[in-house]
Amino acid sequence: MSNAEASLEHLFRVFTMPEHKDSTLSQIEQHLSDNLSDFLSRHVVAKRTSLEEIEQDFNDPHLPSQPEFVSTHAEHLLEKLVTNSVNTYAPTFIGHMTSALPYFHLSLAKLLVGLNQNLVKIETSKAFTPLERQVLGMMHNLVYEQSDTFYANHLHSAVHSLGAFCSGGTLANVTALWVARNTKLAARGDFKGVSKEGLVAAYKAYNINNLGLICSKRGHYSLGKTVDLLGIGRTNILHASVDSHTLDPKEVLALGKAYQAQGNDLLAIVGVAGTTETGHIDPLDELADVAQELGCWFHVDAAWGGATLFSDTYKPLLKGIERADSVTLDAHKQMYVPMGAGMTLFKDPAASTAVRHHAQYILRKGSKDLGSTTLEGSRNGMAMMVYSSLHVLGKSGYQLLIDQSIQKAKLFAEMINRHPDFELITEPTLSLLTYRYCPARVQTVLQSGEYDTHVINENLDSLIKAIQKQQREAGKSFVSRTRLGINAYPNECITVFRVVIANPLTTVAHLNDILEEQVKIASKVPLLNTLMTCIESVDHVTA
Amino acid sequence: MSNAEASLEHLFRVFTMPEHKDSTLSQIEQHLSDNLSDFLSRHVVAKRTSLEEIEQDFNDPHLPSQPEFVSTHAEHLLEKLVTNSVNTYAPTFIGHMTSALPYFHLSLAKLLVGLNQNLVKIETSKAFTPLERQVLGMMHNLVYEQSDTFYANHLHSAVHSLGAFCSGGTLANVTALWVARNTKLAARGDFKGVSKEGLVAAYKAYNINNLGLICSKRGHYSLGKTVDLLGIGRTNILHASVDSHTLDPKEVLALGKAYQAQGNDLLAIVGVAGTTETGHIDPLDELADVAQELGCWFHVDAAWGGATLFSDTYKPLLKGIERADSVTLDAHKQMYVPMGAGMTLFKDPAASTAVRHHAQYILRKGSKDLGSTTLEGSRNGMAMMVYSSLHVLGKSGYQLLIDQSIQKAKLFAEMINRHPDFELITEPTLSLLTYRYCPARVQTVLQSGEYDTHVINENLDSLIKAIQKQQREAGKSFVSRTRLGINAYPNECITVFRVVIANPLTTVAHLNDILEEQVKIASKVPLLNTLMTCIESVDHVTA
Repeated sequence: MSNAEASLEHLFRVFTMPEHKDSTLSQIEQHLSDNLSDFLSRHVVAKRTSLEEIEQDFNDPHLPSQPEFVSTHAEHLLEKLVTNSVNTYAPTFIGHMTSALPYFHLSLAKLLVGLNQNLVKIETSKAFTPLERQVLGMMHNLVYEQSDTFYANHLHSAVHSLGAFCSGGTLANVTALWVARNTKLAARGDFKGVSKEGLVAAYKAYNINNLGLICSKRGHYSLGKTVDLLGIGRTNILHASVDSHTLDPKEVLALGKAYQAQGNDLLAIVGVAGTTETGHIDPLDELADVAQELGCWFHVDAAWGGATLFSDTYKPLLKGIERADSVTLDAHKQMYVPMGAGMTLFKDPAASTAVRHHAQYILRKGSKDLGSTTLEGSRNGMAMMVYSSLHVLGKSGYQLLIDQSIQKAKLFAEMINRHPDFELITEPTLSLLTYRYCPARVQTVLQSGEYDTHVINENLDSLIKAIQKQQREAGKSFVSRTRLGINAYPNECITVFRVVIANPLTTVAHLNDILEEQVKIASKVPLLNTLMTCIESVDHVTA
Repeated sequence: MSNAEASLEHLFRVFTMPEHKDSTLSQIEQHLSDNLSDFLSRHVVAKRTSLEEIEQDFNDPHLPSQPEFVSTHAEHLLEKLVTNSVNTYAPTFIGHMTSALPYFHLSLAKLLVGLNQNLVKIETSKAFTPLERQVLGMMHNLVYEQSDTFYANHLHSAVHSLGAFCSGGTLANVTALWVARNTKLAARGDFKGVSKEGLVAAYKAYNINNLGLICSKRGHYSLGKTVDLLGIGRTNILHASVDSHTLDPKEVLALGKAYQAQGNDLLAIVGVAGTTETGHIDPLDELADVAQELGCWFHVDAAWGGATLFSDTYKPLLKGIERADSVTLDAHKQMYVPMGAGMTLFKDPAASTAVRHHAQYILRKGSKDLGSTTLEGSRNGMAMMVYSSLHVLGKSGYQLLIDQSIQKAKLFAEMINRHPDFELITEPTLSLLTYRYCPARVQTVLQSGEYDTHVINENLDSLIKAIQKQQREAGKSFVSRTRLGINAYPNECITVFRVVIANPLTTVAHLNDILEEQVKIASKVPLLNTLMTCIESVDHVTA
């Protein structure tokens, strides 16, 4: 056997020889399976505090020249990567939408890689294709509640799709608005449609200057990416109701009409069901009326809030979503599925025809290959995770999860309101809220209306920023922060803590600890003194 | 405890109680770990043959109302889903680019879900962010081979990115050409750039009618989606060298100049390094010259062939790739990483500034959040799979894998050439080839030049289609099929078998079996008789 043959045979072992049961990697697996929370609290210990320090461990731009034993590498992963990851499972990690997941996803993840299906086409996915179509059907049913005959006719139809899976909410929004654009600017007369001839020819054929998209100022930043990508341009995002967290249908109508009167047309109104920053929900039912009157597409970005539909109690908050032409959902948010499970749902099963495409070796005409209407090409079988989660938790399980999250957020809001040194900034419509640290004395000064709030708020901003950073770095808990314009301070933006109650394991005691820790950090931050001095000087000057 | 509380407590168990060691799901896991190939051959047994039958198992559009035991559900998955999946690990599955993966990815998949990081921002990924940047740096180094100082300056820079991770090659192509478009149509004078003002304003500001993209007819179908999405329009894809599998630089230059002379400009020339259908490589170095002369972006779609750069032997085939402005790579193809690991690499680390975006709660200016320049938002830590694979296999391991794949493809081509009843249609440049079944007698007739080849080829097409379908349905092996225009039959397209030698475990014996099986199927297909009768009648008529 030559050297090369020997090396090759050795190399093939990674494909054919299972990990030994006592290997480091098998032990990691075992620990994950036995006690995930223990694994994470033992290994995710933030050995290095600053990002710059961590970067030192990932600095080498050279390819490793020689193979390395799997166990050696697994040790390395534990020591350098896992240690300095984020414990998103921790019940005190309430700053973003990533949370604990059910145990069974660990095993399913392994099955998914073991099967390594590619859902772009049936030839590499087989049963996964009908499964994904069924999941889309179930989610379509959750939103649109059509008849059994409707689903019997469309679920597995080669010329229809009830939606499109994708890696996440951004692509779901892009897919929805791509379909909307191509539907709006379809072929007519000599014009062969925007897909074929492009946007410039389309605007000419339709005799318009611009296409606009209306959303609130809380619309997700992916909408900006979408109109950029689609060639519509970011300046054609029209923000209505800028003094509010949600759209006022009357203002949307007026804005839309004025825009159309200037020789433009509207691509879509985008209503949000659960804004990323504050969890607000636009008045969907009334927006559907407005979209109808303006003759434009109605898209609902329910990436966060869509799962609220599982709850009989809170579902009415989303009234009107069933009138949307398209809806974005993220199963990796409130459906507790691993990262990478976005979906666009279409009211009209023929809608995606506007972006249908073919190739010679796959996606042939008449095939049921999912890739014919998806934005992505090769994709994994993430739909299985959603399918399994729907079965193991059931609608009633999801209802409980949604209900307890919202109730906990409301409790937390009460706790903040009761605490003298905190200010609730936005109430939780769903399970998101924002608040800030603001000593009682400062609140009184601000509310008196006798002082220049701007300077005080700027000082508070720095204080909030410092508290948030120190709390994150201490590693026990995490809230995020954002900047919001609120009615109390027109023409200002203030920095606030942002909380997402997503983890079912978060208790009221955890929430209490987080507030206590913030008070404690605040008391030691020099900025608090600066702020109090500032208050005194403001007092002094204006009194 | 109320009923609701009891249900909630029960529900929380899926988050807190590990799977029992004897549970069905744990047993599945164990089987996967112990012997993946055995698991697949026992469970992926194609109980149902037609897609319509499988669809019956995934027909219910109603949400499961009540929770189900994990074990009950796991049984269900085995019986309905796994059974009717595709065994992409089988060494006789040589029809597509999905293949066996190293064992360690099974464990890593579990770790990835256990950690559940979100790479859109550092706050939910921490060490995963520098890790992803390092992987992009290593892959950039593989393609562009810049100095150590270059990487020291850019690898972790907040205002640079050496590339962008994404779910696959389609998004990688979209990302590259999005950056190209926004760079081409950047702000100038009063015009604020295409990102802000849109495509119509941009064409006006730059005084052009259209933007075109030049590629060969073998360019991936995602390029069509890309120009559709970007608003450029599918008719502005200009196919040069339509009689060839690869671009002729002179023709590209002439086509580009003629197009520009008509008041248009060029967005990009896209060279392919390993076409999906046939594995051909465009003359990249000369195309780089042409792109320079035409003043347009040069993108190389190396989703399949990029990994060839690991091989010192075959790397010269890609000469010139280092001159591309952007390069698409798919680690889930020849880097043997699970589905979902696409990348765009940028020659200029500042290129992605053209699509940079911000939000208040994340991606703040100056942050190193990866989401500031990616097309997707939330993303999982797939970069870890690439990182680990690079370490465990090493450059030398990848070199061996690439070399043996190409060598095996060349051997297979020889086997086909030697066999009297097969015709090699396209030679393997890399590890892809196409061929067809064509009985020796028919080959003689076709080559004689005395007959109308069209009728004979149509009969052959049906025969190939039938053989491919029956072989797939028999479940032992799988080759794909496509339709190609080749020089031997101008103005015709013929149906061919398409083979991708990706699985390292495929042996020459397997390849031999596949040919033998095709001969056997052919002998039983009534179409063969039809074909032979047709030949006789053609003989008869024209002799």
